[in-house]
Amino acid sequence: MSNEAYRARILHVTSTNPLRYEYLVDGVLLVEDGKIKDIGPAQRFLQAGFHLAVCQHDPDYLIVPGFIDTHVHSPQLDIIGSYGGQLLDWLNKYTFPAEARYADVTYAATSAVAFLDSLLDAGTTTALVFATSHLQATDQLFEAADEKGMRLIAGKVLMDQNALPEILDTAVGGIADSETLINKWHGAGRLGYAITPRFAGSSSVQQLQLAGELHKKYPDTWVQTHLSENRDEIDWVAQIHPDTSDYLNAYEKYELVGERSVFAHCIHLTESERARLADAGGKVAFCPSSNMFLGSGLLDFKQLKRDEIDVSLATDVGAGTSLSMLRTMGDAYKVCQLRGYSLSAMEAFAMSTLGNAQCLHLDKYIGNFEVGKEADFLMLDPNATDLSSRRTGLSETIEDELFVMMTIGDERTVAATYVEGNLTRP
Amino acid sequence: MSNEAYRARILHVTSTNPLRYEYLVDGVLLVEDGKIKDIGPAQRFLQAGFHLAVCQHDPDYLIVPGFIDTHVHSPQLDIIGSYGGQLLDWLNKYTFPAEARYADVTYAATSAVAFLDSLLDAGTTTALVFATSHLQATDQLFEAADEKGMRLIAGKVLMDQNALPEILDTAVGGIADSETLINKWHGAGRLGYAITPRFAGSSSVQQLQLAGELHKKYPDTWVQTHLSENRDEIDWVAQIHPDTSDYLNAYEKYELVGERSVFAHCIHLTESERARLADAGGKVAFCPSSNMFLGSGLLDFKQLKRDEIDVSLATDVGAGTSLSMLRTMGDAYKVCQLRGYSLSAMEAFAMSTLGNAQCLHLDKYIGNFEVGKEADFLMLDPNATDLSSRRTGLSETIEDELFVMMTIGDERTVAATYVEGNLTRP
Repeated sequence: MSNEAYRARILHVTSTNPLRYEYLVDGVLLVEDGKIKDIGPAQRFLQAGFHLAVCQHDPDYLIVPGFIDTHVHSPQLDIIGSYGGQLLDWLNKYTFPAEARYADVTYAATSAVAFLDSLLDAGTTTALVFATSHLQATDQLFEAADEKGMRLIAGKVLMDQNALPEILDTAVGGIADSETLINKWHGAGRLGYAITPRFAGSSSVQQLQLAGELHKKYPDTWVQTHLSENRDEIDWVAQIHPDTSDYLNAYEKYELVGERSVFAHCIHLTESERARLADAGGKVAFCPSSNMFLGSGLLDFKQLKRDEIDVSLATDVGAGTSLSMLRTMGDAYKVCQLRGYSLSAMEAFAMSTLGNAQCLHLDKYIGNFEVGKEADFLMLDPNATDLSSRRTGLSETIEDELFVMMTIGDERTVAATYVEGNLTRP
Repeated sequence: MSNEAYRARILHVTSTNPLRYEYLVDGVLLVEDGKIKDIGPAQRFLQAGFHLAVCQHDPDYLIVPGFIDTHVHSPQLDIIGSYGGQLLDWLNKYTFPAEARYADVTYAATSAVAFLDSLLDAGTTTALVFATSHLQATDQLFEAADEKGMRLIAGKVLMDQNALPEILDTAVGGIADSETLINKWHGAGRLGYAITPRFAGSSSVQQLQLAGELHKKYPDTWVQTHLSENRDEIDWVAQIHPDTSDYLNAYEKYELVGERSVFAHCIHLTESERARLADAGGKVAFCPSSNMFLGSGLLDFKQLKRDEIDVSLATDVGAGTSLSMLRTMGDAYKVCQLRGYSLSAMEAFAMSTLGNAQCLHLDKYIGNFEVGKEADFLMLDPNATDLSSRRTGLSETIEDELFVMMTIGDERTVAATYVEGNLTRP
């Protein structure tokens, strides 16, 4: 039985509604066999006779739970920072050709490792991932995540129309491949499967229908897709699915909208769509940097909260411009400011940890340092850069410091990433 | 006579209207006594008998002119990433208390050096800078810039009302201090002086009037101030200056609007204000990260260009979230995308170099590698991070590569900064 103690400052969210957190100025996180065994002030451990000399890290370090990203595309690191155009152009010009390369299994395998390493470098230990439409490339991604012991949910993209022929599947074939992957990976180790129709525009009615049936057959899988990102996209989807009342309805009709469904973007939802999404318990993935980069629009975060919709936070790389959840929190603040709402540092931090875990129904495993949970955690370094050191040194509260980190921090702020108690990066 | 040759890739803008640039895949920049002596393909130099073996830098490096930032506050590094509120709250809660510390000359002196080093680390070799309202702190900033040989324009902030008493000057006293600094620093070495009323809200009619007279007395000084950043600010200025027709008019009345005037923000200008600003030749400093961070709004860049207004690009630290002009170019892209315009990488690069030099009437000295200009230049490293290396490696054109750098790059991308031919950072 391995048993490790980590001594530094510790911060984690203990409840999202109401928002509560625990901050230990000199804390100890005790990890046994990859799980949280205990957490508390160092003083208590010292009094109990623990020898904490060896487990002392830089006392300025801030130990936090690993970040969770609820929407990211593994093959799109290669097109981050591709110029011009809004959503539909961007898909055709950059995304589809890049994803076509994943027919090459060797390329897919090495790229999967590079993607996961980049996630871990950024401090993200769990993500909900779109792979490509290729069975084998998706298999490689699961293989790599399993190797690293990461809690990852991913899915093969379903798309049987309106894209490059070489990345299209068929309605029946795509579902069969998904089921193969479910049987191999869903529930294997820490892995989970998400049924992944890219978006209503690239799936036929038959494919959406079969996807809904597959989810009914495996009800503890997840569903992930895109919804209401861009106005041209919305108009186009309405043309392609003329017998739907609105965009959300294209998923509702096939029973793809439920508590285990995560919809990326949701910027331009109508009042009716918002009400129905809330009723169904569907989750939103808020992707601020992507939404700005593609000019998609500014999510009205406050309105969604008022509607009691669960909103998670996500990078959406490659349209998103960074895998860092810290950067993403900073961009979320900017988007919210432009909508007249000052997102607090603790709200953004809660979303990126326990809140995102709740949205993914993974909060019994991860998201904070409750005893018994899996020990995915980070060492954040407030002195990662000269400016960060100068600025965090002037912070009077942990909220202030966290806000500085999310405004000027990035992957440099993450000094170390632990997965199930094991140091994995750097 | 010192004579140095630098061999690597070279990129610079040769004309902004029409936009033209020169890109040398294997180029040489020849520097003599701090000035550009020659530039061309390495082949030409080799044929002329130059020994280029010793001047070979990493051939992947991209040599570009030093960046120029047309709006930044030197005392505000200490409040970068301060939470909450829009402009007027932000000034009262964070800015004014931070600037009050600059009454301490020792603090002002060390902070000035730290600020300039941070600028240089980010690759910015010239900036138009707001100091504080203190004569001595401003003097220290000039002193430090002179020491580093930087081409810098700065000014003591004029503000005689509506702020913390300890940072207010008086109408007459503030102008006297400005004149003292003009006599000492304007035209000294590479330095220039900008008459700097903070904004119409914090200057009395008398102060604005005296500022206009001072500019008339020293017509080759610059004028810098803020204009139309935030809707509450606009309403408030209208109350404070009730006999003005609009915000711009508060400056026009005192002859502060001309070709050497730089107005930060200008987000909410009326059609009439835009027309008058264009006629007067006043310059706009577009501050995308600040405008998002404070929720001020999204500049309609395309509209200003249609109105033939000169728009420069600026960080506006500390409301801006980075001193890096690369990051600022990336944020400018996002703001423009949200307004339906895809700012090209070369446009953004042109603004940050030759375009900003033109806006500051410094293009006879800096902004590109025309022979005879001052040798302020950078070595950009496309391999600064793993992701940058992966992504720029896939770029097919210099425009693509530059766009990647402005999307995911930052101060890490700047491998070296040269001022007048001298390596100053790192």
